[in-house]
Amino acid sequence: MSLTSASPLEAAQSAKSASHILATLSDDARNDALTAIHSGLTAARDDILAANARDLELARKAAADGQLSQSLVSRLDLTKPGKWEDMLKGILDVRGLEDPVGRVTLRTQLDEGLSLERVTCPIGVLLIIFEARPEVIANIAALAIKSGNAAILKGGKESTESFVAISRVISSALEKTQVPNGAVQLVTTRDVIPQLLALDKYVDLVIPRGGNELVRYIKDNTKIPVLGHADGLCSIYLDSSADKALAEKVIVDSKTNYVAACNALETLLVQESALSLLPDVATALAAKDVELRCDAASKAALANTPGLKIVDATEEDFNTEFLSLTLAIKVVSGLSEAINHINSHGSHHTDVILTSNKEDAETFMNAIDSAGVYHNASTRFADGMRYGFGTEVGISTNKIHSRGPVGLEGLMIYKYKIRGGGQGAGDYGEGKRQYLHQKLPLE
Amino acid sequence: MSLTSASPLEAAQSAKSASHILATLSDDARNDALTAIHSGLTAARDDILAANARDLELARKAAADGQLSQSLVSRLDLTKPGKWEDMLKGILDVRGLEDPVGRVTLRTQLDEGLSLERVTCPIGVLLIIFEARPEVIANIAALAIKSGNAAILKGGKESTESFVAISRVISSALEKTQVPNGAVQLVTTRDVIPQLLALDKYVDLVIPRGGNELVRYIKDNTKIPVLGHADGLCSIYLDSSADKALAEKVIVDSKTNYVAACNALETLLVQESALSLLPDVATALAAKDVELRCDAASKAALANTPGLKIVDATEEDFNTEFLSLTLAIKVVSGLSEAINHINSHGSHHTDVILTSNKEDAETFMNAIDSAGVYHNASTRFADGMRYGFGTEVGISTNKIHSRGPVGLEGLMIYKYKIRGGGQGAGDYGEGKRQYLHQKLPLE
Repeated sequence: MSLTSASPLEAAQSAKSASHILATLSDDARNDALTAIHSGLTAARDDILAANARDLELARKAAADGQLSQSLVSRLDLTKPGKWEDMLKGILDVRGLEDPVGRVTLRTQLDEGLSLERVTCPIGVLLIIFEARPEVIANIAALAIKSGNAAILKGGKESTESFVAISRVISSALEKTQVPNGAVQLVTTRDVIPQLLALDKYVDLVIPRGGNELVRYIKDNTKIPVLGHADGLCSIYLDSSADKALAEKVIVDSKTNYVAACNALETLLVQESALSLLPDVATALAAKDVELRCDAASKAALANTPGLKIVDATEEDFNTEFLSLTLAIKVVSGLSEAINHINSHGSHHTDVILTSNKEDAETFMNAIDSAGVYHNASTRFADGMRYGFGTEVGISTNKIHSRGPVGLEGLMIYKYKIRGGGQGAGDYGEGKRQYLHQKLPLE
Repeated sequence: MSLTSASPLEAAQSAKSASHILATLSDDARNDALTAIHSGLTAARDDILAANARDLELARKAAADGQLSQSLVSRLDLTKPGKWEDMLKGILDVRGLEDPVGRVTLRTQLDEGLSLERVTCPIGVLLIIFEARPEVIANIAALAIKSGNAAILKGGKESTESFVAISRVISSALEKTQVPNGAVQLVTTRDVIPQLLALDKYVDLVIPRGGNELVRYIKDNTKIPVLGHADGLCSIYLDSSADKALAEKVIVDSKTNYVAACNALETLLVQESALSLLPDVATALAAKDVELRCDAASKAALANTPGLKIVDATEEDFNTEFLSLTLAIKVVSGLSEAINHINSHGSHHTDVILTSNKEDAETFMNAIDSAGVYHNASTRFADGMRYGFGTEVGISTNKIHSRGPVGLEGLMIYKYKIRGGGQGAGDYGEGKRQYLHQKLPLE
């Protein structure tokens, strides 16, 4: 890792060169680098926590002056119970994942002595822009090296001292490995995000790790593909055939398990004929302090239910990602209206149908244009660790490349290899040789 | 197909709605639509050719006035031998391809009664911007419908009459099928490309079908992902261990099989110790009228070879896609210099090593950052039909989603389906249920 005050352009050029070497390293060589980083960080604990303490001191002052939120100060703190250990364990977890490089995904015999192979390979150079959490730098460095990608990192200024200390350790750890120095570049100069976003000649993918505002700014200001999601407006459609206890449980979990998450529930659509289920669902939500923004029909259905916090819903509530203990509720005539509502108001993240009718469930899952479509399960399952990917690079609502929770696979692309014996395209055609196009097993 | 003079926005909104229906249709329903289009076009041959004749008449006048190239006039002509028949056969070929929708590519048991599935699905709405060839409209409509995507088509103005005639037939053919009317939209209003490129809310992927200039313009003027390539600067590295006859044949085929193609050879790198092979290679190229742009070292090596057209190469020649009988030649010290040259001067399309050394070949193929990397075979194999894909949507030099020749797969993305029995994320964790994460066979 290099952490000179390189200009964005220098960092990108150097990362690009490094990516070409990184792409040729074996899994062992990449894993050795992760082991070295892990050992280096373990040994440098005191120095890094001292640097982190300096960041924290400045941040606490800024918070006292009202210039920084308390939650940001809390996110900065590497001494919070388990945080340091989790950061180190994360590196070993990534090291233990199956090698994503060099997997053969297609093999065709084009002709005798002429074979085609599609093989996974790294994308090239990743630009990762993240907010204050200092532990992210170790996680990202590990993911990049494991997947054979070079990375340019730009972190929030509040964690500068921690970033520099961590990256100094990573840098010296990598020196004893085959991973080239330019493979992970930390850009510490300030206000360079617009310059970084213009480097589409060198950067192949941008991964923002932060809130909506950061992601939306990045998506709006670069031609480089962005992996991520700005919004997470997840919906549940409650069908009249749904089991009441099941509906209560899934809706409450989706809404309240972690309200600030992108996969939390924001809109509940209730089939007209399912309104008899609503009072118990609403009571269960009220027990968790959820405020209900109801349309007229759902409000009427709850008129005799005590203990609820009900507010009249506005049109805007059905386009809002609350990220709080607030839920918009709307009554729809049936499946087809629910599908149309979700496809036009949702954010194509994760949407759920609660029903006992399997056919309706399949129709819903095929027709909803979202990364995750679930039957009788919580929206909160939309997560790389829960999917069993071993890691999560982010959650994507893109329509190409990677969609939903993204594991290491999302950092890979493929190339086509042909191995021949001197064939030319002019050898094939009418009255000449014919292609075999014989599919071969992938081993 | 709708061919009202819809505004770009109306077309996009209507295509988006149609895409949600199209995504739920069975392969049979989509194939029936292709059959209907095929029958409709067969029956309407005379009308369409009459419309095409009107386009041709205007184009010939414009060509006589010097406002249009003869080659464009020729591309317009649907009566050229085989063109009409190929267009119709193409529809049936696409119909015969394996259904790309609904393939299960991952299946995991998250817990008892909680399963995860990753299933291929259409991307949504494609925007296809193409130049004059009127037969492309039938091909694109077939690809879109087969893959379950809606498409907005914007063709070159020289073929307007042909496009309108063909799309009228497609439109009335689709009326008797389950494919919704808005699934294929022809935009005939003029000068709307900038407006179309701004519709990132509705359009998921842009596919330009035309020359470099069109592709570059589109890539520079939209935030929507673009599938394609602006440049095809393909290189061959000639190693000293290469068989001379093999080298001659592959280089001549790569350069001369079709000079205007994106997969034609533009730069030849010769290992210093392979210079003894160069005179015969150059003689074979000269026999095909190829002009050689030589650096000093390669020029010196050819000083005693008669019958060559040699020009001193400039720096710029090694960054140029000639698309003509011109080849830039440069001497390099060895494999590593060749790799660096290609990675920095090439267009990441298709590059070749000619060598008898298998280890060097593998190093080259891993280190070259291109969609196609070949050992002892012509650059000209970079083609969807030659790869056995049955069709070709385009050739991509993107680093995400699709790379190289793109078949129907490139028009697909996936979604995650979870089928549960009322589980919440809060059920799992320390002291609670544990995820199984058991990989299941894909069937």
